[in-house]
Amino acid sequence: MLIIMRSGPTEAQCVRVEEAVQAMGYSPVRVPGADGRMAICVTGNRGAVDDSLLSRLPGVLRCIRVTRPYKLVSREVHPEDTVVEIAGVPVGGEEPVVFAGPGSVETEARTLAVARAAASAGARVFRARLWSESLRPYEFGGVGEEGLHTLARVREETGLPVVTEIVDPRSAGQVAEIVDGVQIAARHMENEALLEVAAGLDCPVIVQRGPWATIREWLMAAESLLARRKRDVILCERGVRTGLERRTLLDLHSVAVVRQTSHLPVVVDPSRAVADRGRIRPLSRAALAAGAAGLMIEVHNRPDTAYTDPGQTVDIPTLEGIFRDLEVASAYERLDA
Amino acid sequence: MLIIMRSGPTEAQCVRVEEAVQAMGYSPVRVPGADGRMAICVTGNRGAVDDSLLSRLPGVLRCIRVTRPYKLVSREVHPEDTVVEIAGVPVGGEEPVVFAGPGSVETEARTLAVARAAASAGARVFRARLWSESLRPYEFGGVGEEGLHTLARVREETGLPVVTEIVDPRSAGQVAEIVDGVQIAARHMENEALLEVAAGLDCPVIVQRGPWATIREWLMAAESLLARRKRDVILCERGVRTGLERRTLLDLHSVAVVRQTSHLPVVVDPSRAVADRGRIRPLSRAALAAGAAGLMIEVHNRPDTAYTDPGQTVDIPTLEGIFRDLEVASAYERLDA
Amino acid sequence: MLIIMRSGPTEAQCVRVEEAVQAMGYSPVRVPGADGRMAICVTGNRGAVDDSLLSRLPGVLRCIRVTRPYKLVSREVHPEDTVVEIAGVPVGGEEPVVFAGPGSVETEARTLAVARAAASAGARVFRARLWSESLRPYEFGGVGEEGLHTLARVREETGLPVVTEIVDPRSAGQVAEIVDGVQIAARHMENEALLEVAAGLDCPVIVQRGPWATIREWLMAAESLLARRKRDVILCERGVRTGLERRTLLDLHSVAVVRQTSHLPVVVDPSRAVADRGRIRPLSRAALAAGAAGLMIEVHNRPDTAYTDPGQTVDIPTLEGIFRDLEVASAYERLDA
Amino acid sequence: MLIIMRSGPTEAQCVRVEEAVQAMGYSPVRVPGADGRMAICVTGNRGAVDDSLLSRLPGVLRCIRVTRPYKLVSREVHPEDTVVEIAGVPVGGEEPVVFAGPGSVETEARTLAVARAAASAGARVFRARLWSESLRPYEFGGVGEEGLHTLARVREETGLPVVTEIVDPRSAGQVAEIVDGVQIAARHMENEALLEVAAGLDCPVIVQRGPWATIREWLMAAESLLARRKRDVILCERGVRTGLERRTLLDLHSVAVVRQTSHLPVVVDPSRAVADRGRIRPLSRAALAAGAAGLMIEVHNRPDTAYTDPGQTVDIPTLEGIFRDLEVASAYERLDA
Repeated sequence: MLIIMRSGPTEAQCVRVEEAVQAMGYSPVRVPGADGRMAICVTGNRGAVDDSLLSRLPGVLRCIRVTRPYKLVSREVHPEDTVVEIAGVPVGGEEPVVFAGPGSVETEARTLAVARAAASAGARVFRARLWSESLRPYEFGGVGEEGLHTLARVREETGLPVVTEIVDPRSAGQVAEIVDGVQIAARHMENEALLEVAAGLDCPVIVQRGPWATIREWLMAAESLLARRKRDVILCERGVRTGLERRTLLDLHSVAVVRQTSHLPVVVDPSRAVADRGRIRPLSRAALAAGAAGLMIEVHNRPDTAYTDPGQTVDIPTLEGIFRDLEVASAYERLDA
Repeated sequence: MLIIMRSGPTEAQCVRVEEAVQAMGYSPVRVPGADGRMAICVTGNRGAVDDSLLSRLPGVLRCIRVTRPYKLVSREVHPEDTVVEIAGVPVGGEEPVVFAGPGSVETEARTLAVARAAASAGARVFRARLWSESLRPYEFGGVGEEGLHTLARVREETGLPVVTEIVDPRSAGQVAEIVDGVQIAARHMENEALLEVAAGLDCPVIVQRGPWATIREWLMAAESLLARRKRDVILCERGVRTGLERRTLLDLHSVAVVRQTSHLPVVVDPSRAVADRGRIRPLSRAALAAGAAGLMIEVHNRPDTAYTDPGQTVDIPTLEGIFRDLEVASAYERLDA
Repeated sequence: MLIIMRSGPTEAQCVRVEEAVQAMGYSPVRVPGADGRMAICVTGNRGAVDDSLLSRLPGVLRCIRVTRPYKLVSREVHPEDTVVEIAGVPVGGEEPVVFAGPGSVETEARTLAVARAAASAGARVFRARLWSESLRPYEFGGVGEEGLHTLARVREETGLPVVTEIVDPRSAGQVAEIVDGVQIAARHMENEALLEVAAGLDCPVIVQRGPWATIREWLMAAESLLARRKRDVILCERGVRTGLERRTLLDLHSVAVVRQTSHLPVVVDPSRAVADRGRIRPLSRAALAAGAAGLMIEVHNRPDTAYTDPGQTVDIPTLEGIFRDLEVASAYERLDA
Repeated sequence: MLIIMRSGPTEAQCVRVEEAVQAMGYSPVRVPGADGRMAICVTGNRGAVDDSLLSRLPGVLRCIRVTRPYKLVSREVHPEDTVVEIAGVPVGGEEPVVFAGPGSVETEARTLAVARAAASAGARVFRARLWSESLRPYEFGGVGEEGLHTLARVREETGLPVVTEIVDPRSAGQVAEIVDGVQIAARHMENEALLEVAAGLDCPVIVQRGPWATIREWLMAAESLLARRKRDVILCERGVRTGLERRTLLDLHSVAVVRQTSHLPVVVDPSRAVADRGRIRPLSRAALAAGAAGLMIEVHNRPDTAYTDPGQTVDIPTLEGIFRDLEVASAYERLDA
C-alpha cells in the first residue's frame, strides 16, 4: 500500500498517517518525491491492507495498492528514475558511467599506473577489489584492508571517485571511511549481516546480482537496504549460472526488466560472464543498448600481468573503444526522447 | 585436419588427396574459398591425424590442425564470413536483416494484413509458423500444411521471401517446395531425422538453438548439415533455460562466441525469451549491438488478437522503431571497419 | 472437467454425454475404470467448463473439476495406479522391473552375449538403442534399422521382451513390428510428429523426460499420447540439465511428484546422469527408494569394450548387485502397505 | 602433493619436512592418520610440486601427487571415512543420524514441545534456526540470539545435542558457546569471513551446499576450513537451482560423488528442495539409499502452525516412519560390507 499525500503535507499530517499505519501493525516508510511531494509506504503487511481508515486521514490524497513483493524499489512507489551520485558522478542520469580498474588492487605503483591510464581513456569511477572474488583457499586472496591506502592514493592522483567491494560486516565501516562507494559482491547478495551494515554506511551501495538469484530476489536485496532508509542504491547485473557453460551467462533481459519495474539505476559488469577479453566490447555495447546506466570494466595497462583474471581484463585501447561506443549508444537515448 | 591446396589445384590433385584421406579411414569434405582457393577438410577422425603423407601430396600447400569438435562450421576451416541468400536477401552481409511476421500463420486475410504492414515498415523476410511452438495437446496447434498456400500468397502480394518452421521429416519436402527458407525449431535441434532431410532441401536452413543446448551442441547441429554438403545455414539464438525465471534467457554472449568461432551468420529471435512486448525493442537493440546478423520479430497489426503468444507480439509502430534502431547499430559497423 | 457416470452406464448414456460435450465445443475422452466404472473427460477447454447441463444428463453421477493442465495422465481423473504390460511383464505393479542391455545394439554375437548374461542376472526386459543418443556427425551413430534382426534374435534366444528407441516417424512403424515396446528418446520428448506416430503403435510407449523439461511438460508429452487414445504409457526420468555439472542431474524428486500426481508408472534411467559406472548402483538404490517402478541399466559383459558410453556401462556383477538391492527396496513397500 | 611419513616419525623429521615445504614457497598441513601414521600435505602450489628433494628427507616414505584442486578434504589425502562427533553423537559412522527440529526456534514452550516429541520419536540431534533462511525484509526473520537460551533449555530437557545456523561473523562465537554444532547456511557457503570465524570455533561445522554451487565449489568451502586446521566438518546437500521448477532440486548424485572423492561425512536436508511435506519421506529414503550419513528433517508437533515453512514441515508420525525406514536402509550397509 502506498499512501499519496496531498501536495505540501504538514509534518503533523505525515506523523498521524505513520501512527495509523503502526497501529495496524505495519511499518510506515516515507518516500519523498520531486517538488515537495510525499508518499508513505506501508511495509510489513502480508496480505492486502484495508485503506478505509487511511484514505480518510487529513492530508491523504489517495491510497494505491502495490502489487509486487518489493515496494520501495518499485516504480509503482517511485515512478521517476533515481539518480545516485558517487562523489559527484551521477549514475542513472543521461550519460552512462564507466567504472574501470584492475580486477584487484595490486601494488601501489601498479595500481596507480592502471588508474592513470583508465582516467586518461575516460573512466569516471575507479573500481578494484581488495578481496578475491571467490573462495580459493590456496590462491591470491587480495591485498585486503591494506589496499585502502592505495585506493586513497588513486583518488588523490587521478581525481576519480573510488569504489570497492565489502565482504565482512566487521571491516565494512573502515572501508567506507576511505572510498566513495561500496559494492556488495554477488556471492554476498543474501548476506543479511553485510546488507544491514551497508544500509548504515554514508556512501552509495552497489548490489551485485547473485549468480543464482532471480530478478525478484535481487530487488529484494536492494529492498532490504531501502527498508532501512538507505536511498543511494545501484544494481549491478553480472551474469547468472545456467546449465550450459562453465561461466555465468550475462542476462541483459534483466536490465530491461529492472528498468520497467524499479526506479534504481542498473549497471552491467560483463567481465565474469564473458570471461574472454575479446568479447567484453560487443557485450558492453549490448548492455548499453539494453538500457544499462553504466558499465564495470576490468582493465589493465598490462592485462597479461593482472593479479586476477587476466583473461577477462581488457587493455587500454579496448577501453578507449568502449568510450567511442558510448557515443553510438547515446543515439538510442535521442530516439527514445 | 584441414588440407590447404595450392592456388588453382587441378581436379586430379583434389581427388588424389580425397582418396588418401579415405584410405586413412576418414571422410574428406571440400571447402571452396574465395578466388578459386580450395581446402579439403578431414572429418571422422577421433584423435589427431598424421599429416606426414598428406602434406607431401601434389598440390597441397599445408595441413592445419583443427582444434574444435566441429570443423566445417569453424572459422579455422573457413575464415571469411559466410553470407546466406534467402531468395536474394543476403543474411550475414553488411546490413542486418529483419524477419517479421505473426507467431503463427492465421487466416489468409489476417496473415496478408500483417504481411503488408510488416513489408511497409521495412521487413525483408516474412516468417510465420505452420505448427505450434510447443506441445499443448488441447490448444491451437497451428494451421499445418494448409497454410502453405497462404505463405505463397504473402510472397505474391508483398514480394517478400517467406520462411517457416519444419517439424516433420515427412512433410519437410512439401514445405520447402513453397517457401524460400526453412527453420529447424528449437525443440527439434537434435532431431537427426529432420536435420538429415533439411540437409537435402534446396533452400537455406535456419537452425534455432535448443533451449537446453550448449553453444557447442548448437554448432554440432549445424555441422551435421554441413557434413552432408549443405552450405546455406543460418544460426538463430532464441534463449536458453535457466533456473531463475519461467521464460528462457536470451544469451547474447552466444552471438559474440559464434562470431568468433564460426563463419555462419547468426540471427536473434528475442520473442520467446523476452515474453513481454514492451521489452522486445531494447533486447533487439542489444542483439544488434552484440553483432547479430539479423532479428526475428513476431509482429501483428492487431497484436492482442494474435492466434499465438499475443503478449510477445509487437505492433507495427514498434517494428518501425526497430528499423530506426538499425541505423544506430550500423554506426558500430563503421567503428569496427 | 471429469464426468463420472453412474455404475454400469449404457452406451446410449455415454454417447449422449459425449454429444453434449461436443456441442459445447470440447472433446470428450472415455476413461474406463475398474469394475465397469466409466468416466468421460472433457478436453480442449481453456477455462472452467459449465457443468449445469452436463450434471443433469441421464447416467451422470457427478462432475469433478480437474485442476491441472494435464488431465488424462492425472490421478484426479484416474486414481488407481496404471500397470503397463510389456509382453507380459507388468511395469507399475508390485515388483520393480529392471530393463537392461548395452547402450547400443552391437554386432549380433556381442549383443546376444550381453543379453544372455543380463537374463541370467535377472533382467526382465532387454533394452538397447539402434541410433546414437546424441548428435555427433563424425562418430558411431548406431546400427540403425539393421539391428532389428538382432533384437528379434535376442528375444528368441533369451525369452526377454525387447525395447528400443524410436527417433523418426518414418521408421517407427517398422521398429514397432519387431519390438515389444518403444521409447521416445529424451531429445525427442517434444517431437510431435514422433509422438503422433507413437500413439498409433500397437505396443507400450516409454516417454523419457527431456533434459530441459519441467515435470509438467513431461506429463504433457504423455498427455498428448493419452489424448490420442493411447493407454499403455510409461514415464522415464533420466536427468535434467543444471548449471552445475557437465552431465545431467538425476531428479528423484520428480519420481515422488509423478507418483502423487499421475497414475502412470515411472521408471528411472541413471546412466546418463550418473555417467560413472561406480555410481550407478547407489543411484539405482535411491531411485527405488524414491518409488520408481523400475530401472534402466546399461550393462555389458565386457563394459570397457561397449560401442557407446563404456564409462556409464556396468558389468554383470554390478547388475547382480542391483537385483539383490531390489529385495531391500521391497521392504519399503511392506512398510507402506 | 602428499608426503607420507614412515611409521612413527619423530617430531624433528616432521618439522624438517615442513621447513622444506615452506622454503619452496608452499604451506605444509599435517594430516594425522590412524595408528600413529602421519602425512604432510603441501598446499598453496599452483602447478606440480618437485618432489626430488622432499622424497629424500629422513622419515619420508613417499610423495603422492594429489590430482584435485581440493586436497585436505580429498580421499586421496585421507582414505578412511572421517567420523565427526556432535557432543558424542557420531556422524559418518555405521548408523545414519537424524537431525530434527522446527525450521526456526519459536517460543520456548513451543520449541520444547517439538523437541520432546522429536526426541521420543528417535531424533539424535536437535536443529533449529535462529535467523530466517532467506532475505525477506518484511517477514518473520527469526528470533535471533535471544533464542540461544531456548536451545540451551532444549538440551537440558531432552539431552539432545543442539545445532543451529550461524550467519554473522560478529555473533558466531557467542552462538558456539551455547550450541554443540553450527551450520553454515547455504547462502553463506562462500562467505569467507564467516568461514574464517567458523574454522576457529570449538565445535563441529556443517557446510551446506549453496543452491548454485558445483560439488567442487562446495568441497572448496570445506577445504577452506580444513586449511585452517579445522577437522570436524560435515557436508550437507540441500538442493540446487535448476531452470525447471521454482524450488531447488535435491541432488542425490552429489552424495555418491562426495562419498567417492572425500572422507568427510555428508548428510541430506530434503526440506527446501522437496517443499511438500508429503514428499519428505520418499526423498529421505532415497538419500539414505544413496549413502547419506544422516538426514535433517524439519518437524513439528503441530506442523500447520510452524513459524516458518509449514508446508515442508512433517508431523511426528512421519518422523517415526523415517526412523522405521532407517532400518531398511541399514540392510544396504550389510550388503556392502
